Amino acid sequence: MSDKGYRYFKVTVPEPWIAHVEINRPNHLNAIFQDVWREMRTVFEDLSTDPSVRAIVLSGSGEKAFSVGIDLKWASKEGSPFIPAPNEDFDPARRATTLRRWGVEFQECITSIEKCEKPVICAMHGYALGMTADICSAADMRICSKDTVFCVKEVDLGIASDIGILSRLPKVVGSYTWVKDVAMTGRNFNADEALRVGFVSSVFPTKKDAVEEAFRVARNLSEKSPVAVQTVKHFLDYSRDRTVAEGLQYQIAYNTSAIQTRDVPIAISSMMSKRKPTFEKL
Amino acid sequence: MSDKGYRYFKVTVPEPWIAHVEINRPNHLNAIFQDVWREMRTVFEDLSTDPSVRAIVLSGSGEKAFSVGIDLKWASKEGSPFIPAPNEDFDPARRATTLRRWGVEFQECITSIEKCEKPVICAMHGYALGMTADICSAADMRICSKDTVFCVKEVDLGIASDIGILSRLPKVVGSYTWVKDVAMTGRNFNADEALRVGFVSSVFPTKKDAVEEAFRVARNLSEKSPVAVQTVKHFLDYSRDRTVAEGLQYQIAYNTSAIQTRDVPIAISSMMSKRKPTFEKL
Amino acid sequence: MSDKGYRYFKVTVPEPWIAHVEINRPNHLNAIFQDVWREMRTVFEDLSTDPSVRAIVLSGSGEKAFSVGIDLKWASKEGSPFIPAPNEDFDPARRATTLRRWGVEFQECITSIEKCEKPVICAMHGYALGMTADICSAADMRICSKDTVFCVKEVDLGIASDIGILSRLPKVVGSYTWVKDVAMTGRNFNADEALRVGFVSSVFPTKKDAVEEAFRVARNLSEKSPVAVQTVKHFLDYSRDRTVAEGLQYQIAYNTSAIQTRDVPIAISSMMSKRKPTFEKL
Amino acid sequence: MSDKGYRYFKVTVPEPWIAHVEINRPNHLNAIFQDVWREMRTVFEDLSTDPSVRAIVLSGSGEKAFSVGIDLKWASKEGSPFIPAPNEDFDPARRATTLRRWGVEFQECITSIEKCEKPVICAMHGYALGMTADICSAADMRICSKDTVFCVKEVDLGIASDIGILSRLPKVVGSYTWVKDVAMTGRNFNADEALRVGFVSSVFPTKKDAVEEAFRVARNLSEKSPVAVQTVKHFLDYSRDRTVAEGLQYQIAYNTSAIQTRDVPIAISSMMSKRKPTFEKL
Amino acid sequence: MSDKGYRYFKVTVPEPWIAHVEINRPNHLNAIFQDVWREMRTVFEDLSTDPSVRAIVLSGSGEKAFSVGIDLKWASKEGSPFIPAPNEDFDPARRATTLRRWGVEFQECITSIEKCEKPVICAMHGYALGMTADICSAADMRICSKDTVFCVKEVDLGIASDIGILSRLPKVVGSYTWVKDVAMTGRNFNADEALRVGFVSSVFPTKKDAVEEAFRVARNLSEKSPVAVQTVKHFLDYSRDRTVAEGLQYQIAYNTSAIQTRDVPIAISSMMSKRKPTFEKL
Amino acid sequence: MSDKGYRYFKVTVPEPWIAHVEINRPNHLNAIFQDVWREMRTVFEDLSTDPSVRAIVLSGSGEKAFSVGIDLKWASKEGSPFIPAPNEDFDPARRATTLRRWGVEFQECITSIEKCEKPVICAMHGYALGMTADICSAADMRICSKDTVFCVKEVDLGIASDIGILSRLPKVVGSYTWVKDVAMTGRNFNADEALRVGFVSSVFPTKKDAVEEAFRVARNLSEKSPVAVQTVKHFLDYSRDRTVAEGLQYQIAYNTSAIQTRDVPIAISSMMSKRKPTFEKL
Repeated sequence: MSDKGYRYFKVTVPEPWIAHVEINRPNHLNAIFQDVWREMRTVFEDLSTDPSVRAIVLSGSGEKAFSVGIDLKWASKEGSPFIPAPNEDFDPARRATTLRRWGVEFQECITSIEKCEKPVICAMHGYALGMTADICSAADMRICSKDTVFCVKEVDLGIASDIGILSRLPKVVGSYTWVKDVAMTGRNFNADEALRVGFVSSVFPTKKDAVEEAFRVARNLSEKSPVAVQTVKHFLDYSRDRTVAEGLQYQIAYNTSAIQTRDVPIAISSMMSKRKPTFEKL
Repeated sequence: MSDKGYRYFKVTVPEPWIAHVEINRPNHLNAIFQDVWREMRTVFEDLSTDPSVRAIVLSGSGEKAFSVGIDLKWASKEGSPFIPAPNEDFDPARRATTLRRWGVEFQECITSIEKCEKPVICAMHGYALGMTADICSAADMRICSKDTVFCVKEVDLGIASDIGILSRLPKVVGSYTWVKDVAMTGRNFNADEALRVGFVSSVFPTKKDAVEEAFRVARNLSEKSPVAVQTVKHFLDYSRDRTVAEGLQYQIAYNTSAIQTRDVPIAISSMMSKRKPTFEKL
Repeated sequence: MSDKGYRYFKVTVPEPWIAHVEINRPNHLNAIFQDVWREMRTVFEDLSTDPSVRAIVLSGSGEKAFSVGIDLKWASKEGSPFIPAPNEDFDPARRATTLRRWGVEFQECITSIEKCEKPVICAMHGYALGMTADICSAADMRICSKDTVFCVKEVDLGIASDIGILSRLPKVVGSYTWVKDVAMTGRNFNADEALRVGFVSSVFPTKKDAVEEAFRVARNLSEKSPVAVQTVKHFLDYSRDRTVAEGLQYQIAYNTSAIQTRDVPIAISSMMSKRKPTFEKL
Repeated sequence: MSDKGYRYFKVTVPEPWIAHVEINRPNHLNAIFQDVWREMRTVFEDLSTDPSVRAIVLSGSGEKAFSVGIDLKWASKEGSPFIPAPNEDFDPARRATTLRRWGVEFQECITSIEKCEKPVICAMHGYALGMTADICSAADMRICSKDTVFCVKEVDLGIASDIGILSRLPKVVGSYTWVKDVAMTGRNFNADEALRVGFVSSVFPTKKDAVEEAFRVARNLSEKSPVAVQTVKHFLDYSRDRTVAEGLQYQIAYNTSAIQTRDVPIAISSMMSKRKPTFEKL
Repeated sequence: MSDKGYRYFKVTVPEPWIAHVEINRPNHLNAIFQDVWREMRTVFEDLSTDPSVRAIVLSGSGEKAFSVGIDLKWASKEGSPFIPAPNEDFDPARRATTLRRWGVEFQECITSIEKCEKPVICAMHGYALGMTADICSAADMRICSKDTVFCVKEVDLGIASDIGILSRLPKVVGSYTWVKDVAMTGRNFNADEALRVGFVSSVFPTKKDAVEEAFRVARNLSEKSPVAVQTVKHFLDYSRDRTVAEGLQYQIAYNTSAIQTRDVPIAISSMMSKRKPTFEKL
Repeated sequence: MSDKGYRYFKVTVPEPWIAHVEINRPNHLNAIFQDVWREMRTVFEDLSTDPSVRAIVLSGSGEKAFSVGIDLKWASKEGSPFIPAPNEDFDPARRATTLRRWGVEFQECITSIEKCEKPVICAMHGYALGMTADICSAADMRICSKDTVFCVKEVDLGIASDIGILSRLPKVVGSYTWVKDVAMTGRNFNADEALRVGFVSSVFPTKKDAVEEAFRVARNLSEKSPVAVQTVKHFLDYSRDRTVAEGLQYQIAYNTSAIQTRDVPIAISSMMSKRKPTFEKL
């Protein structure tokens, strides 16, 4: 188990194959600002190609919050992207270019979780507010503790989020009236409601239980062929967005190399002999 | 509170910012025919750009029905789109052109609810049959009273609906086997089933309760930045239909002007000071 | 009632308009290999254009299993698509061509259920494992008995399925975290969980009850206009994959001939007179 | 031959089946402003469904210009969409809403030419500048006289056109480097260059010759089955924008009614007997 | 050189790797009807996977015509798809189903040329009329002799073609005004015009010269890596229809196996040593 | 005029607003390998957001070649992506992952030219072979000297290019038969042919003339509103790939901020006063 030395994230490998990524500003309830999301991208890009990692657990440090979302103090300073300096003489089109470059980078930081080749299991607890939803909806699986409080808060900042949640939420849960309700009202919803609509897969009594479950799932994944697990992640994300016919055509193209892997005969013979298979790094 | 003088709809503004649109043919159980859906388009186009309106509640007049759907007497007359005159000498391709022009207009009337810039909360009760589903699935949020009876009835007229429900239903609820079940069998389903599959967000004891809840949500929305609320509606509808990447790219383009709004600093400072914000008209 | 003489499927017409397709290898728990899926395509292509059939029930022979999925003994032989002969001298690109041709055919066999013009109701029981999910998710409706055990197993063979489930599952149920969970872990889930997430529409005490319910629904569909029912199936599948605007435009184009059917006046007059309609073959 | 009484357009039917639409502000070199493009939409919507019209010729009144594009005097007034009033206190997001509503209407006016069910042949001469290109690229065929001078001028107003040319030009001609050249530099190009890159189909000595040729083509089209001609227009525009597979699927859906027309046996028997066919109105 | 024994096509392999497909009804000017297009599909499906074939030349038997298109005598018989029997009692929707099944099969027969894994070079001469354009636009390269006369004739049968040309022509040549011109007027165009707009790549004095050139190109292709040539064909067709980003993503997925071919080191070393490479069959 | 200190590129600003990027390995005929394309990305990303640059000229150092394409010596070394080490024990799926990461990076390096916010004018001369085509087709405009020799060479390495040309070429020129011809045969074509098919916009006697013309165009662009020029580039690339309707919707969203620029009134008043406008940096 080694800490990889980031500033706002604690990244450890507490057991073989499994990385634990913790948002690590507990004294600020894991509030997020530009330096944090930039580092988040670095973390997930590093893990994406690290052959010693096969599954990632994402959680928040401290007992009170997974994250309260954007750091409001930082956001409300003059000169931040949200609050232009009062006497600044600006041209709306030139400011638009600044905002666009900023927004594209911000989107890429969050999408780095979806693009990460390894599966990411998000274990939430306590406050999971605002842009937390943008982040978590980019993860592969979401579980939480009973005390988790969620919301899609950007609307209360006068903003329609453009960093992920409004693109992903209609594809992450099944009830579109519920999606519009929480995204327009910004109201809180709790773990039970999150489970009922399918935003999380399961709810556990405490943060500890939720994180342990995330590790249990991660362990399960890490014992399988990494070729198969990582390809499943990619196929689902590709196909979610496209026609069935487009999804099927792409999968064939991709699988013509993936299915040639030696992991297949290893997996089949281990299944028939009921012995645990061992797979090479990827 | 003023009535705006439509014929088949009662449109009032019972409190600031909130328009109440009632289908107003209670003696015909709010049955719908061509003049009705054409007026419905006028209503929602008017409200879409009315700066004194920030949220819309859609319900049905009378105690028995939100609407029983298409007016069967009208539909079964010779010369209607469904029943050509018996001795008419027609060419199938020329009749197709007539039907196409008719159908495109009909679609536009229903889509006017989705295109309406303001959020539309639909409160249903009693009978909510047939093309009611086409109309309500174009609204943003759906709630209902306990006694509501729903169905997707067109199949029993020998028709596959082409005015909305078969395009929107797979995107409005999560269970595709349920979608096929109700759309192919035309069977009734009740409020509890509608809630379970996510077609409605919540169920209330009476029509009165459902409409009051719709007003409560509408009031909540009307106190927020109208820039933010209306942009959220648009982003969700745009993104529901496209890849995550396309959704994100469009949102950035759109937000480069929306996010320059003065509503953002107003919202942030009100949030930090815990005072209620006031936003300009839109 | 006549048997149509296939080898791995029992295809009967136990009552007018309804075909019963049974996977018929009960001694192998209805395990599937290349000859089986090829014959499955023939079965559904035949039924698709058979004017005496209006609805299809798909189930598995025997008490133990709908199907255990791929026949592992067949798959694990040297020379199968999964296990190349050990000393074979192959070029990865040429093997890719072989795998691609194989995969495209396999996909077409499963998609034949979706493309079948007649609605297909799948009644599952007992084991419903592995590529069963690929097959069933291509059917229109899914119901099951209480004892059914499901899984998406390919990942445990070292493979990301490219024959349907990873394209269709995100569109068949509403919770994406659940989709990733079952598709990545390959874990079993039972009838109650399948119902809760919307993978099946309803659960029945026994296989017999589930099949009877499937026939009840099939009978209901077979009494309606076949033009309407078959068009509803096609519209939903077309629109599920596309923007609302694209779906609506296509539906109008298609309906300009479908809506000219004599079934419409027959249906409307029977609805008004409350007599059972009779529709011509299709 | 009757004039239909528009203000900025002269619309006549100089011979059976053929409408002649002339931009009619010769004293302003047919410069265009809001009232003009709104009336243009009315003109093309009227002709689209007029059964006595089968082809439309679009040209400009006077000898000097097809049109010089936008009326710069109108555009440069304070309060126009391009020049906000100097002391106006505006919010960038609210102004964006105004600009969006304005832009959508403007686009619809130009797209009315593409959506017009009847083929539109555009005969250009003299100045054909600026937003003329937006208009003409929405027509079906473009021919011109030798003296025609073209340009895509918006860039010199500090604007990237959003009303059509930048969407249609890459699909209207084959050389993308040429598209970027003329769209970025705003430079003039002449009839020979327009012919070489395929922007126009042919060049004639004088305006009179070009208009006569447009009438010759229109006459040819008007003698054919209007079902066939109008369907060809629609199929090409639909397919230009989509995959070949999508285009083919839509065409089949549409043709199931179009191909049932009596025009087919009329056309075939006239072709075999070498007699001129007569087709019903559409 | 062996004849493969088809009825309406002469298929020979006059030199290693190159198949020559000739439409073989010279006494009927190679006119085409249902049996012919069905056999055409068989021919191209057979060649697609024949490892002894690397390139295909498609031409027409006899001196007068590549093909005059559809066999008008066959098409004008009562009971044909174009001419229903006069007293037949039909329902427009049921006839639509018949036409749709017919049309889909017809499309598949023509698309078999595009789907054929091997490149197809089409050498035209004499009459190349009507549905010839549908067929040739599905080939990879088109060349012709000087005397070739082309047209897109379906419009003169009262039909908008739905079998390929209206989907492919906007993607095959660059001038959209020219596409609309020839597709709407059905007028003839000659070899020079075909070359100028890019419909053919080159023009030769006689049929013999054109076919020889086609063989020269085919020979050139057959000496290259078949993995590379066939992948280029597929990548171009895939990408033509999609965004650049979608094209690039698919190509990577596909190439992860194709690029592992031994043909790459063989090709590179032969290029450096300036010796002719030899590639394995595919 | 300052050199920005890259290794394989010479980047200068010889006159205000215009950057000159020269591939700078003249002793290797500007052959390209991994370090080169990585640096190319850095160059274009730097220029993309450099407010002192408004247009970019891309050319090759030395008299003999724009670039001969990939450095064959580098590519043919064992251990390169093309030639795995001979005794390496590899798994095809794991090698596929390596190739995919490699390919994605390579694509991004080339696409950096298309994504560069500033217009890029490519002036070619001498050899412009192989992956040169991938690079140049990502530029906005292409011109060349008379002696330029082009080819799309990858096929002769046993590879179907996946780094751009096969995605962009069908959208860059109009004749699809020509595209297939040069992409499948790998044959050379000269400046005249490149001009005739529209791959280049114009041809000049010498390299010097071509580069001077590129500067003339760049100078022209740099005198216009940078908001307008850069938006035109983006709109064309966005719309080239999508339906007209999608293009128009996106342009409106984007323009709601761009059109608010002060450059518009500056441009209009300068146009009316015939004085040269001055625009702020972007």
